[in-house]
Amino acid sequence: MKKNEFELIKDIRGMFSDLPVHGIGIGDDAAFIPRGSNLITTDTMVDGVHFLMDKVDLADIGYKIMAVNLSDIAAMGGSPETSLLTLGLPPSFTDAQFHRLMTGIHDSAILYRYSLAGGDIVRSGSLFITATLIGHPLKDPILRSGAKPGDIIYISNKVGDSAIGLMLLKDKNSLKVKSPNYFLSRHLCPSPRLKLIEYLTQHYTIRSCIDISDGVIGDLQHIAEESGVGYFLELNELPVSSDEIGKEFERDPFFFYDLAATGGEDYELLFTSSDTIETMKVYDHIGVTIKPVGRILESGEHIGYFEKEFTPSDFKPGFRHFEGE
Amino acid sequence: MKKNEFELIKDIRGMFSDLPVHGIGIGDDAAFIPRGSNLITTDTMVDGVHFLMDKVDLADIGYKIMAVNLSDIAAMGGSPETSLLTLGLPPSFTDAQFHRLMTGIHDSAILYRYSLAGGDIVRSGSLFITATLIGHPLKDPILRSGAKPGDIIYISNKVGDSAIGLMLLKDKNSLKVKSPNYFLSRHLCPSPRLKLIEYLTQHYTIRSCIDISDGVIGDLQHIAEESGVGYFLELNELPVSSDEIGKEFERDPFFFYDLAATGGEDYELLFTSSDTIETMKVYDHIGVTIKPVGRILESGEHIGYFEKEFTPSDFKPGFRHFEGE
Repeated sequence: MKKNEFELIKDIRGMFSDLPVHGIGIGDDAAFIPRGSNLITTDTMVDGVHFLMDKVDLADIGYKIMAVNLSDIAAMGGSPETSLLTLGLPPSFTDAQFHRLMTGIHDSAILYRYSLAGGDIVRSGSLFITATLIGHPLKDPILRSGAKPGDIIYISNKVGDSAIGLMLLKDKNSLKVKSPNYFLSRHLCPSPRLKLIEYLTQHYTIRSCIDISDGVIGDLQHIAEESGVGYFLELNELPVSSDEIGKEFERDPFFFYDLAATGGEDYELLFTSSDTIETMKVYDHIGVTIKPVGRILESGEHIGYFEKEFTPSDFKPGFRHFEGE
Repeated sequence: MKKNEFELIKDIRGMFSDLPVHGIGIGDDAAFIPRGSNLITTDTMVDGVHFLMDKVDLADIGYKIMAVNLSDIAAMGGSPETSLLTLGLPPSFTDAQFHRLMTGIHDSAILYRYSLAGGDIVRSGSLFITATLIGHPLKDPILRSGAKPGDIIYISNKVGDSAIGLMLLKDKNSLKVKSPNYFLSRHLCPSPRLKLIEYLTQHYTIRSCIDISDGVIGDLQHIAEESGVGYFLELNELPVSSDEIGKEFERDPFFFYDLAATGGEDYELLFTSSDTIETMKVYDHIGVTIKPVGRILESGEHIGYFEKEFTPSDFKPGFRHFEGE
């Protein structure tokens, strides 16, 4: 890099001056958290682990790290306010790469209206990006621990798209699908469901919620564990992109339902409600589909696929960071 | 690592269960920020850049990353409440190393009474640790921008110790000093001046404050820039550890004053006050010395050393992360 830490901070400060600052902004020892903001989440992406720097546009990576954090705030029933950004930059990182990365982050900040309050820039062997997002709950925060027996389990939009996108990103011949670009974009640019959760909390009782990062089964297990309940998941009801997959789907539907259940990184919402939600009405207002896929039980973890019945251990777990090491 | 991400989080959750949790703790999509806490700061340490994993006890590194963050909260006139922790762990990282690192962080949390609310664990080529600390200002937050002409500039305890410690850590024969272990411990275990700033804000008007991370001159320049003022710094008044250095100090005092002014990473407080602070009274109450070392001027950056006068450009700048790359 030609620029030093202070020059990079100055650049960032200029770039984000079109967004509101709450009290103290960039340039003091600590930053200010806006009054009433009491949700905080953080996520990290590392070159070579979560993405390959040379294979992607860094603007997509900047956009994605923020989307992942925004999705966590959505899963709590919240709205974003401000953020912190930590960059570990390798010696070979260029000013142009820095600018692409920051452009993706800035695009996200403009779109979802949150500010950048501070952070840290350090040297590192390989690129890593840690983003921390601060927000406030729109009503009471929605926890993983709130699910009750009898709740219906819903999922927003589609699941499995990101896993298909990742397979295609690694090897474009790994899978024959009708619309490969659709899946690539779903992997690179997940959509945080902020508007959806805002609408749902206003009109229905949302008992528990999680964003799907580990995979439907893995994340449903988190809810079951934290809530002390069981569940029945109807695998064949998972909303999968059968049209965009095309003929391959007809050939082996279970392969795609399995991927949808275990793939992870969809950043859709999985939530439970004591209400029967009018899914068409939600779609008319927000433009996002939601679909019932199962029910919360007193205990037990049951997964149905047409007439067959499975348990979670029949499925490989979602992406675990230290698997096999 | 033998353990996966979820098992490590479970370990951490158990380890920190002896500390208070504010609302939602570890295990949801986002964490809760305690009511009234509106200061946030973050710092990162990377293996090979900020420390050498094989040359240090990882408990010291865990302690230090938290001390650096605590020092930022102290510099804002604040008190810590809760924290987030992001770990980038290399494949070769052992469960024992993980435990040492977490022990240092837990020690700090017990000593300074803050909780761990959440974070992220990812795989990474090399070890990095990002800690985010959330706190509340004891009165109004103290900014870098509050210095006014006529203010006296004070520094807590000693400066230059950390730079000497780092030289000795890199090569124990680089410098002959009387008490090498003293300097090593000052480098590895800086003391956040939380009690000092609490006492000072209760009894005096503290106009501006910064913690010394880049070096006395670099950090004083940050205050001058943000406040739109100048300063006179009396280099020969800097509190240096002449006794612990010993004979070498007599041989070349300027070398050590230079190191004190530019070395950085002391994490002492540099603050300005419109009051003449009763330094002995402060020491009697808190056990930390403070020393006047200069004065805020309308403009100009003047550095005196006995009869000589210098400007900041005569001194090499503090550690810049991307220098020469």
